[in-house]
Amino acid sequence: MTSRTSSPLIDGIADGIAVDWIAVDWGSSNLRAWAMNGTSRPISETSAATGASTLAPDAFEPALLGAIGPWLREAGQPPTDVIICGMAGARGAWVEAPYGTVPCPPSPANPARVPTTDPRLAVRILPGLSQTAPPDVMRGEETQIAGLIAEEPRFDGVACLPGTHTKWVHVSAGEVVSFASYMTGEMFALLAGQSVLRRTVAPDGWDEAAFLAGAEDGLARPDRVPARLFGLRAGALVGDLDPVVARSRLSGLLIGGEIAAAKPYWLGRDVVLIGAPALSRAYGGALALAGLDAREADATAMTIAGLAAARAALRTRVASNGAHP
Amino acid sequence: MTSRTSSPLIDGIADGIAVDWIAVDWGSSNLRAWAMNGTSRPISETSAATGASTLAPDAFEPALLGAIGPWLREAGQPPTDVIICGMAGARGAWVEAPYGTVPCPPSPANPARVPTTDPRLAVRILPGLSQTAPPDVMRGEETQIAGLIAEEPRFDGVACLPGTHTKWVHVSAGEVVSFASYMTGEMFALLAGQSVLRRTVAPDGWDEAAFLAGAEDGLARPDRVPARLFGLRAGALVGDLDPVVARSRLSGLLIGGEIAAAKPYWLGRDVVLIGAPALSRAYGGALALAGLDAREADATAMTIAGLAAARAALRTRVASNGAHP
Repeated sequence: MTSRTSSPLIDGIADGIAVDWIAVDWGSSNLRAWAMNGTSRPISETSAATGASTLAPDAFEPALLGAIGPWLREAGQPPTDVIICGMAGARGAWVEAPYGTVPCPPSPANPARVPTTDPRLAVRILPGLSQTAPPDVMRGEETQIAGLIAEEPRFDGVACLPGTHTKWVHVSAGEVVSFASYMTGEMFALLAGQSVLRRTVAPDGWDEAAFLAGAEDGLARPDRVPARLFGLRAGALVGDLDPVVARSRLSGLLIGGEIAAAKPYWLGRDVVLIGAPALSRAYGGALALAGLDAREADATAMTIAGLAAARAALRTRVASNGAHP
Repeated sequence: MTSRTSSPLIDGIADGIAVDWIAVDWGSSNLRAWAMNGTSRPISETSAATGASTLAPDAFEPALLGAIGPWLREAGQPPTDVIICGMAGARGAWVEAPYGTVPCPPSPANPARVPTTDPRLAVRILPGLSQTAPPDVMRGEETQIAGLIAEEPRFDGVACLPGTHTKWVHVSAGEVVSFASYMTGEMFALLAGQSVLRRTVAPDGWDEAAFLAGAEDGLARPDRVPARLFGLRAGALVGDLDPVVARSRLSGLLIGGEIAAAKPYWLGRDVVLIGAPALSRAYGGALALAGLDAREADATAMTIAGLAAARAALRTRVASNGAHP
């Protein structure tokens, strides 16, 4: 039923270990894919800069083949399942995977098959989630939530997924109950890189004390955050504000303000942070100032677990229907 | 003592009316200049895209001559006073005019003369203002404040100067007591033009009701403004949020949030708005929601009045010193 990788040139795949299916996280700006053995064991990884926002609809299949082609079973054998989450399913991208509407489980039992010209592919794109009031959407994060639920089926609490558009997600009884997005990461990038603050905010570097001081200020007086921003420029002009301190304080102010606004989500809840390690640690530090002890989960592991759960649900369904797997 | 414009080609100057001095507002992105007759009467106007942020120090004099050359008295006659406010006096621009530190009058009695190679020029650049705690700076707006004080010497209240970096300025007894800057205009431009919201926020257009609803929301819950922004994108994806409504609501949210943060400035005060007419009206509408009836003053008239006051002070000083005018 499964092929074996025949070429010893395929980096990272031990010769003789089967690629049973392929997990793909296809975001706006890049693609990451994992060759999977069995239900949930990644045996190789690849990435490409062919982000979903950079491709016309007919460019997706060639881009996918360019990334994962060496992992596919040969023509004539059963096609390889490729389970994709993220912006590849947005309107105008490869094939639109319409949003599920919360409250609902984070991924559907039977995501639609995406037509391909290459017969070696059996592609499915997982849909995102939408919320009607207040309006909100996610694509990709729902799969990390599915991974969290797969690992902790009884999870009842809040997942915070920090990133360009940070999501706060209330999860209960295996469903996403509600969620809220904050543009904090994008706002930080715009202010630090494009605004007048770029002249006095370092492009990198980190000062934890300055971050925490900013976060404390943002948490205590979120309404005053807009009054603090220009001071990061003025502090360098009339004082000697260090660029790394300015960068860290800016991050703290914005994250502190976000956490203050998101208080209805996290107050009194079990909170799991799912994001890049440095960013998750920053959110964790700011949440600790608010008296909350959040856990951290590995974002990549959650993505893979969510894709694996979707593929397992699909296999179970196919098997119970008596169809060819 | 004054020359007459000799060329009938000089647009806007009636033949035979003297250009006594020249007023210049030299900002980051453009230059505006007025040929002045007597103390405070503009008789012609010009502008150029030679903003201070685009020029090396030695490019300022040629750029100035390119803009106002036709207005100058001929060589051999007394040089023409050119009074400049704005970013031309920033560090790294033409010649740094170091900030005055508040509390202080908005412009000094004797701004430094800027050396020029062309003997027809007698250039002075007015300094900006700085504040130590919290750190803040302005360059250009102080001259509009000087204009306001010139027109209303007993003004005791707050000037709000909406723009890229909106300033709230407490003025009393002819001095700037304190001030606070908000990056609201720049934030709006970045969010509407550079962020994910650009896909659903119209590049222009205005819906007054949507603006006021956004402003009311921002005023009532400034801490929640970060929670509203991504909703402008999601509202278009899962609903039918109109791009012009989205643009106006975004502006309202940001301005409402700013006004809430600036409450210690405006509460119970006489507030004068000095800015572009449409923007001043928007701020006036949002302030009215907060129960405040602000006045509007013409921004260009305030700039010219401030430059005229600085030049008059200079002339008085020169005359009282018995020096050649």
